[in-house]
Amino acid sequence: MSKTEYNVKTIEWQSDEVVMIDQRVLPLDEKYIHHKTWQEVGDSIKTMVIRGAPAIGVATAMGMALAAMQSPATTYEALKQDLDAAAQGLFITRPTAYNLGWALQEQAKIYNEPGDPDDIRRRLKERSQEILDEDIAMCVAIGEHGAPLFPKGARILTHCNAGALATAGYGTALGVIRSVFKRDPSIMVYADETRPFLQGARLTAWELQQEGIPCCLITDNMSGYFFKKGEIDAVVVGSDRIAANGDVANKIGTYTVSVLAKAHGAPFYVAAPTSTVDLSIPHGDHIPIEERDPAEVTHFREVQCAPSGIDVCNPAFDVTPHENVSAIITEAGVHLEPYSESLAAAKKGK
Amino acid sequence: MSKTEYNVKTIEWQSDEVVMIDQRVLPLDEKYIHHKTWQEVGDSIKTMVIRGAPAIGVATAMGMALAAMQSPATTYEALKQDLDAAAQGLFITRPTAYNLGWALQEQAKIYNEPGDPDDIRRRLKERSQEILDEDIAMCVAIGEHGAPLFPKGARILTHCNAGALATAGYGTALGVIRSVFKRDPSIMVYADETRPFLQGARLTAWELQQEGIPCCLITDNMSGYFFKKGEIDAVVVGSDRIAANGDVANKIGTYTVSVLAKAHGAPFYVAAPTSTVDLSIPHGDHIPIEERDPAEVTHFREVQCAPSGIDVCNPAFDVTPHENVSAIITEAGVHLEPYSESLAAAKKGK
Repeated sequence: MSKTEYNVKTIEWQSDEVVMIDQRVLPLDEKYIHHKTWQEVGDSIKTMVIRGAPAIGVATAMGMALAAMQSPATTYEALKQDLDAAAQGLFITRPTAYNLGWALQEQAKIYNEPGDPDDIRRRLKERSQEILDEDIAMCVAIGEHGAPLFPKGARILTHCNAGALATAGYGTALGVIRSVFKRDPSIMVYADETRPFLQGARLTAWELQQEGIPCCLITDNMSGYFFKKGEIDAVVVGSDRIAANGDVANKIGTYTVSVLAKAHGAPFYVAAPTSTVDLSIPHGDHIPIEERDPAEVTHFREVQCAPSGIDVCNPAFDVTPHENVSAIITEAGVHLEPYSESLAAAKKGK
Repeated sequence: MSKTEYNVKTIEWQSDEVVMIDQRVLPLDEKYIHHKTWQEVGDSIKTMVIRGAPAIGVATAMGMALAAMQSPATTYEALKQDLDAAAQGLFITRPTAYNLGWALQEQAKIYNEPGDPDDIRRRLKERSQEILDEDIAMCVAIGEHGAPLFPKGARILTHCNAGALATAGYGTALGVIRSVFKRDPSIMVYADETRPFLQGARLTAWELQQEGIPCCLITDNMSGYFFKKGEIDAVVVGSDRIAANGDVANKIGTYTVSVLAKAHGAPFYVAAPTSTVDLSIPHGDHIPIEERDPAEVTHFREVQCAPSGIDVCNPAFDVTPHENVSAIITEAGVHLEPYSESLAAAKKGK
């Protein structure tokens, strides 16, 4: 797959800087932020300049490479100390995304072995680029595995953004949709807006528009209406973490969509790389759910839309139980119940 | 019930002007709009200065009284012609709210009988005030009938705003909540924000705050999360039109909430005056669903949040089938399945 196929550059190295498209200001503004330190990368993860579990993984790996470059250490021990501190700082930015911890472990494999500091610096940067390249390749594989699941002319609902912007490119759920569209241009996509952060309205609608994939934007509470009218044939979403039994943590609202899909007999697919599968967690109750700033709910960008002082809940994710998941699509294939077996086999195969 | 119990003045006569609180700018701004013509009232209904089926009914009745005052007619025939034109103009402002047509019929009973024009003018104004007073009395009765349905310390989800602002005062669904709270101050309310127009965030949260009723604001897609955690004991919503079989048209998103309530075994109550029940419509498929301006979805007030040119669907209402409705609470009592019988009896009793 050539690079020119991608209209969207989510994150990349430009010499020794990590450059990210600022996803907070899309789709009205296309702004790129340059990062010279791991702290800047951490801030960008926390404030959602970059979001989406696979993209966060890439950013984390690059952040660790920046940490190595920043460090004035001339000995292995001093460098390792700085890298451990950076890893701790990056780890706490977003608690739900499993790829974040996975990327830290990947980089730790390099710097946990004593070696020449400059050699470690070089290898951390190389590995972060590899993770980016692998991520795109995985997304394309996910798309190819997932595409045959959809009927001709499918009307597909997706929630949040699991697109090129949530990954290094191509996307997981939107990767599947891209692959379906290549085979069947008669499909259409319902993108729900995904309050409070509006990833659907701002990012998914924008990506689909860039690709020329027919898309209808709806608010989150409209999907039941379209399910009831028989106008949604299937759902595909991404994931931030998948437990060993197939329980799926994803953007808040995913669980509601899964209940609607089940009630209306529509298949509910999850698309994610195997790096999102956390076999150490037996089921979804163990997945930490991040609670975010109440202002995301009381405000719509800078516009206040609720009375001052009102109590707010703002869980950023929910867990869809595996019973509501028709299949999990990874780069290794299409996995079915019992997920405890199929996911373990997929991880082992890697 | 004394007037001083109401903090909220939704709509009232001030000499020969109809004054409405502008619900588009709440909760940040408390602005009142004065109407001297039925056309201005029609615009305010259409643009949602005033909304909520019972409140629209009151506004419509007052609009007809204004139409009579505006008319220079000196003969009955000339006045009737002007009033018929006004009725047609008001009828098309919001197609789903049944109380709108009901209020027009109430006023037509007066002006369809030949009489002295000034006498008709006086009686139309008096009847509109009666409709307002009756509406408040009905809401209080709905609240009293509904309150015993809720367990001690109930955590109640409501969708949209069926409060004092949606009625002449007190509210239907929020009237029930007000009555429950009077008996049991340990309850709390989840108010979902209700995109795209944010009646929950802007109006329900504000009303509950005014009353000191504990309230937690969530986005629409979070209710599944709280149902799954067992943190919602019951749902109560209003309605814009109820078919003879108990199918309930209400703000878009209501159906989704009903599916979630059913999936989690929580009762789903609808609170509305019998004037909302339309026995001429056998079931929900016959209820017209208003499609509103796409800009409500792509924008948040003046802030654009979706790419320009994106396709949008914006159905303003959905229909919850009677199977998902645990009970319908009217001023006549609590009605259960079979609704085709219980609702007909309730209407007859009026």
